[in-house]
Amino acid sequence: MIYFDNSATTLIKPPEVAEATAYAVDNFGNAGRSFYDAASVVSREIYATRMEIAKLIGCDEPLNVAFTSSATESLNMVIGGLVSKNDSVITSVLEHNSVLRPLYLSGCDLCFMGCDDNGNLATDTFKELIKPTTEFLVCTHGSNVTGNITDVQGLYEKCKANGITMILDVAQTFGTIPTNVGMADIFCFTGHKGLFGTQGTGGIIVSGEHDFSITKTGGAGVNSFDTFQQKCVPDIFEVGTLNSHGLYGLQKGVRFVNEVGVDKIHEKETRLMRLFYDGIKGIKQVRTYGNFSEKDRLPIVSLNIEGLTSSELAERLWTGYSIATRAGSHCAPLLHEHFDTVSMGMVRFSFSYFNTEDEIRKGISAIEEITESLG
Amino acid sequence: MIYFDNSATTLIKPPEVAEATAYAVDNFGNAGRSFYDAASVVSREIYATRMEIAKLIGCDEPLNVAFTSSATESLNMVIGGLVSKNDSVITSVLEHNSVLRPLYLSGCDLCFMGCDDNGNLATDTFKELIKPTTEFLVCTHGSNVTGNITDVQGLYEKCKANGITMILDVAQTFGTIPTNVGMADIFCFTGHKGLFGTQGTGGIIVSGEHDFSITKTGGAGVNSFDTFQQKCVPDIFEVGTLNSHGLYGLQKGVRFVNEVGVDKIHEKETRLMRLFYDGIKGIKQVRTYGNFSEKDRLPIVSLNIEGLTSSELAERLWTGYSIATRAGSHCAPLLHEHFDTVSMGMVRFSFSYFNTEDEIRKGISAIEEITESLG
Repeated sequence: MIYFDNSATTLIKPPEVAEATAYAVDNFGNAGRSFYDAASVVSREIYATRMEIAKLIGCDEPLNVAFTSSATESLNMVIGGLVSKNDSVITSVLEHNSVLRPLYLSGCDLCFMGCDDNGNLATDTFKELIKPTTEFLVCTHGSNVTGNITDVQGLYEKCKANGITMILDVAQTFGTIPTNVGMADIFCFTGHKGLFGTQGTGGIIVSGEHDFSITKTGGAGVNSFDTFQQKCVPDIFEVGTLNSHGLYGLQKGVRFVNEVGVDKIHEKETRLMRLFYDGIKGIKQVRTYGNFSEKDRLPIVSLNIEGLTSSELAERLWTGYSIATRAGSHCAPLLHEHFDTVSMGMVRFSFSYFNTEDEIRKGISAIEEITESLG
Repeated sequence: MIYFDNSATTLIKPPEVAEATAYAVDNFGNAGRSFYDAASVVSREIYATRMEIAKLIGCDEPLNVAFTSSATESLNMVIGGLVSKNDSVITSVLEHNSVLRPLYLSGCDLCFMGCDDNGNLATDTFKELIKPTTEFLVCTHGSNVTGNITDVQGLYEKCKANGITMILDVAQTFGTIPTNVGMADIFCFTGHKGLFGTQGTGGIIVSGEHDFSITKTGGAGVNSFDTFQQKCVPDIFEVGTLNSHGLYGLQKGVRFVNEVGVDKIHEKETRLMRLFYDGIKGIKQVRTYGNFSEKDRLPIVSLNIEGLTSSELAERLWTGYSIATRAGSHCAPLLHEHFDTVSMGMVRFSFSYFNTEDEIRKGISAIEEITESLG
């Protein structure tokens, strides 16, 4: 198999991720109040995982990193915990349903930044969208469809100037492109993509003070006689038994990213993505989506071939060439409406540090052969 | 180490649980729309996990089993999705904070069944507590503090006769004592205790039709152009990437329970618990909590030794005998108020199928030596 679906999950992990997860299953007790080693080691290793995440994003305080079960849960907790129906919120047409749907659920007044023909976010419209009731900007750091990166630094400056809290979805970017804690107020991440961790892990990184309301509650191992868990970070987000097995695997994944360096990862993934794009961009029947003239972008190339739906193309890639891609609409409905690809979808090729140039060349050949076969 | 903290997490698992989890980390893609084997196998194995759970509880429809990240999340989703502030709800003083706190958060009108000196639930008060606005009973199947089992069958009959929906917390009982789908309307379970699965797994088993409102939303891999995910079970509870790595481990844990048989597990654990109880009950300074005259109970013995706080005792057990127990209040605040153990807590010994009679005898000797040393 040639695996080009890394934006869905990084299937090829550093080997120590699975090893650590299995070790934890057989050796970890339940974190929290206890005296025995198998429980206290869990608290220490969860803290060590916070430290790796904090290091990667340049955050001084590991306790500002809270763990959840996924980026989706992180976004639900942050949006559900901050946004009320009386707030106005700015978001964008690039967003994944994990951003859009929690915003819809909040009942807030919602405005959208649009995008151009290449999917570039119209950040220049941000200031026009601000109303007196605008409290939040919620947006993605990088599109899971086009791979375009958003100018979050510019947006965050405008947010700060206007008293707006910026919530950044880094599901696609964390571990893949340099990301630092000065880019937004709150970051929602997943463990199983660019951080090479396990599924069932994710989290929230908080900068500054925010008055989160409780969206999930239960036992926390401390303060059992209070009506609710504590409202501080990370306690407000971490109730019940944490996925310490998965988090120990995640720790090894993030350590790998920190040791290799996110710059080097980004450089290699960009080289692979460029190699692929350069190989297929001249094929007449191929249409790509996204801005490939920008230096910085995610290692994603989404495309269609004239005469095939995305499902048909992805199936041919798999059955004919053992190439794993993803077809369909990638849970980003507004962007597909923008590109008029609601029914046909797109085939997304997404690359990883563990892909090779040889695999890329085989991917290009497959696209060439499929287009030639269509005549 | 002698591990007697199985009610917190079963540390000793069948070896195939860790092996399967590690295999999944290195071989599973992301379930959902795709054509390649590494993704379609995930959908199949998640379904196979549903089948094992359905088999264990005697449910005909595996799709009535939904997966979450923990029993705490399950209870939050079920209580948050059904109970409104206009409802009256009956619960009990036995409950864990994972039941109590979501109920407090709902703002509902809450009534409590009390318990007697041995922690036996006063189920005879249930009918008196019913009001015209009573819509729900939420209670535990078995106390995580005393190990007493609740007569859920009797309560469920009264619920059905009064149009009350019964939500059962089976975090302590599922996989440990026989549990079947005819015992309640909705079951909330965890993966990492009696099912021998991984942390970061849990779920909801639904019998009959219930109008859940959405408490967590995001991408579901299908119906991307709808404003929300579908409201049917399991879709309403499963948004974002599921913890397929952990669920594959859980599948092996539940299969182990199904193969050995929950009756046999219950029988062995009961024998170990009785052996321990019979060994310590005659020691003058020891006070136990719970009803040990009932045939059916969880393999839990909670106790205190006169002159020591629970923390002091648990520390002596660990440092002197390498025996892992849990001290403190076990997240069940109302029961500790009932037993007047708010400040001293209790030391909980909780046993598993993988404990041995030799370990039990060492546990008894340790209690004997500690009490003797106190003079």
